[in-house]
Amino acid sequence: MAKLVLIRHGQSEWNLQNRFTGWWDVNLTDKGVAEAKKSGQMLAASGVAFDQAFVSVQKRAIRTLWIALEEMERTWLPVTKDWHLNERHYGGLTGLDKAETAAKHGKDQVQIWRRSYDVPPPPMEKGAEFDPANDVRYAGLDVPMTESLKLTLERVMPYFNAEIAPLLKADKNILIAAHGNSLRAIVKDLFDVADDVITGVEIPTGNPLMIDLDADLKVKSAAYMDADRATEIPSF
Amino acid sequence: MAKLVLIRHGQSEWNLQNRFTGWWDVNLTDKGVAEAKKSGQMLAASGVAFDQAFVSVQKRAIRTLWIALEEMERTWLPVTKDWHLNERHYGGLTGLDKAETAAKHGKDQVQIWRRSYDVPPPPMEKGAEFDPANDVRYAGLDVPMTESLKLTLERVMPYFNAEIAPLLKADKNILIAAHGNSLRAIVKDLFDVADDVITGVEIPTGNPLMIDLDADLKVKSAAYMDADRATEIPSF
Repeated sequence: MAKLVLIRHGQSEWNLQNRFTGWWDVNLTDKGVAEAKKSGQMLAASGVAFDQAFVSVQKRAIRTLWIALEEMERTWLPVTKDWHLNERHYGGLTGLDKAETAAKHGKDQVQIWRRSYDVPPPPMEKGAEFDPANDVRYAGLDVPMTESLKLTLERVMPYFNAEIAPLLKADKNILIAAHGNSLRAIVKDLFDVADDVITGVEIPTGNPLMIDLDADLKVKSAAYMDADRATEIPSF
Repeated sequence: MAKLVLIRHGQSEWNLQNRFTGWWDVNLTDKGVAEAKKSGQMLAASGVAFDQAFVSVQKRAIRTLWIALEEMERTWLPVTKDWHLNERHYGGLTGLDKAETAAKHGKDQVQIWRRSYDVPPPPMEKGAEFDPANDVRYAGLDVPMTESLKLTLERVMPYFNAEIAPLLKADKNILIAAHGNSLRAIVKDLFDVADDVITGVEIPTGNPLMIDLDADLKVKSAAYMDADRATEIPSF
């Protein structure tokens, strides 16, 4: 049976400033670093022998993984970085203060953008200050200009199924460090969660979700490593 | 024209203790961390757009690379880790104090092991305290039990030619973070240095060597980024 562990990165600079982040490449805060360390210590104590790690191309996830691997004495583990594991792209809301956005567009509209399954925010304007398409790491790639959770899933899961699922089926233990919504996409698929339920599933930060999968990638068991900070896990 | 940059990791815990290190996985000291930062700052200032990085599976090189990538704002760069880029394997000398070893085997013999091109130290004994073959990262691999510089080169260069040379020929800019002797192997080959000369070539730590290569991998120019701490570069 393969083990899949999902780690959501901890606090970032824009979490603290209450701004929509999405694809903008903010760093971890000291608290976020501490969350990554704690994750690494729990994973080291678990004794699970990982074969490979995957991570987005965003530094808050990459640093979370690196810090955890240091704690695990597994800096040498092969790591694949891919933009398909990035956070949901927040379109034209990227960089905006959440309270200001609510004042401008109305609280209800913002709630729809944040919590609906399939309504994307307005698209990023080309050349706007926070347009990640200006970033060299996305040069030549067909990247989105905005995403709903549904569109995020439609970007994450083909990648997961092509690159990660075959390893799990071959009994490899895999660690993924990523973001609230890219991990929601994976959880929705593996646990077969309904559209209107997944938007309410909160994956805690810095609390590795350990999942046992059989050879058909059916979930056999699942638990957050820090039980004191666990949220409800969807039924399986 | 492709750019190849070689970074030798900075001070490690066993440099400080004056012990033979080889494949033993010691960490950087604070000084080694500072050297990695400086390297990253110089590389950031150079403006070279790297396409990919390569590193050994030893944490003093991996952390050097990670710290440099953080300074360069390039944490997302693809990184390939491979044991073929490891430091020379010091065989049965691994873990021993250099002065004690000289007292035991004689200064001249130790000098031969350290500075000859093709005389390996006595092999590591199976199951010895510092035998890296006990390490899970080498499980199932046919790893050496001791190496001369010549044997190191015969391990490094087939890997370099198979995995890195094709990228350089395709005009990709490549960064390699590794060790005194694995980098000597690459320098010997690219600069066509004689056997009895390469043993005297000292690659400074934390001082990236920037090499311009044409499509046949002929060296067109080469310079250490910190000119104040440069050593002589072999002719080309």
